[in-house]
Amino acid sequence: MRIDIITVLPELLESPFSHSILQRAKDKGLLEVHLHNLRDYSTLPRAQVDDYQFGGGAGMVMMMEPLVNAIESLQAATRYDEVIYLTPDGETLQQRMANQLSLQENLLLICGHYKGIDERIREHFVTKEISIGDYVLSGGELAAAVLVDALGRLLPGVLNDETSALFDSFQDNLLAPPVYTRPEVFRNWKVPDVLLSGNHRHIEDWRHEQSLARTQQRRPDLLQ
Amino acid sequence: MRIDIITVLPELLESPFSHSILQRAKDKGLLEVHLHNLRDYSTLPRAQVDDYQFGGGAGMVMMMEPLVNAIESLQAATRYDEVIYLTPDGETLQQRMANQLSLQENLLLICGHYKGIDERIREHFVTKEISIGDYVLSGGELAAAVLVDALGRLLPGVLNDETSALFDSFQDNLLAPPVYTRPEVFRNWKVPDVLLSGNHRHIEDWRHEQSLARTQQRRPDLLQ
Repeated sequence: MRIDIITVLPELLESPFSHSILQRAKDKGLLEVHLHNLRDYSTLPRAQVDDYQFGGGAGMVMMMEPLVNAIESLQAATRYDEVIYLTPDGETLQQRMANQLSLQENLLLICGHYKGIDERIREHFVTKEISIGDYVLSGGELAAAVLVDALGRLLPGVLNDETSALFDSFQDNLLAPPVYTRPEVFRNWKVPDVLLSGNHRHIEDWRHEQSLARTQQRRPDLLQ
Repeated sequence: MRIDIITVLPELLESPFSHSILQRAKDKGLLEVHLHNLRDYSTLPRAQVDDYQFGGGAGMVMMMEPLVNAIESLQAATRYDEVIYLTPDGETLQQRMANQLSLQENLLLICGHYKGIDERIREHFVTKEISIGDYVLSGGELAAAVLVDALGRLLPGVLNDETSALFDSFQDNLLAPPVYTRPEVFRNWKVPDVLLSGNHRHIEDWRHEQSLARTQQRRPDLLQ
């Protein structure tokens, strides 16, 4: 999978993409992530990329021209399955969407900043708008990092144990059961007996009950 | 506001916290973010922090002892309003929760990794569990970065124009209206006339209508 990211703050994304699972995915040749500085596509003085909004009001808007230059120049080299704009009013990212997007080959991500991007970019260039949640961030960079991480770990071969992602929360609309590791007793707090029983069927049943109970208590909406 | 973060990958969080709004908040003395490497709190050989899960199954679990050492040592120096564990089965972060948390003084964040943390930490030390959305990430680090960004930008004095955050999506349960900037015409795509009219009352009305229409179309759930 190849992911290109257009941003005014490429340096913000350096450390998230050079550690942990994403670095492993890149080392294995399973994922390429390329950062593109929007300012490099501006033909305006001082590499301007934003301007005041028409109609007045607080906050700057990202201009069309640098974005169109960036998008069209990248599209000339790569056929993108989706041109994704990360924005709080996009479709909310959920595990199912992550699963589907992880099957694509080439994605182009646009990080908004300031008040957002000129609406005409959304109308004429963007094919999918994604929100990582109902809250506002200072820019789309962290949202892009979250999306790339959620997709990257689903690529076959990226996680050490390929079965691991299958038992995550949300993959079966249930939250994950509680987990415990050594020591068995810490300050009088004990691991549940069943997990020490060695009886795999009992352990399996207990985990399913716990998943169900936790989902019912915390997220009954997932069960509907 | 002071935020301490316990993580096995402090280096992943370096660049998000040294750019943009968070750096500005730190420069102004409005926000302190301290990263703590969980391995520094392990007394085990090779600074071990995770182990196999009781009952078997794929994925490692973060052990109690290093976490308890880290939490209690930080608590000895600072009184935390909340000890927050970032986990996909936590309460879903929303703008209202971000608004409330931004009023706190001291927060301690725990980033999960691998299969998660030993359940006994959640029972006995964590006061609040937060999910940034219904998807699974390779660790809690990006979730912590998202939470810090969402809170940081709400601190008075952090955004250049203090009125800016008030007109964000979600602050009034409406999505933001479309925004436009120069040029007025780009490849035949024109800015809506009303925004060029100079009539502030018409502009205000148009924006409200657009917000409402966009919310009705994309996120009718917000209107209920």
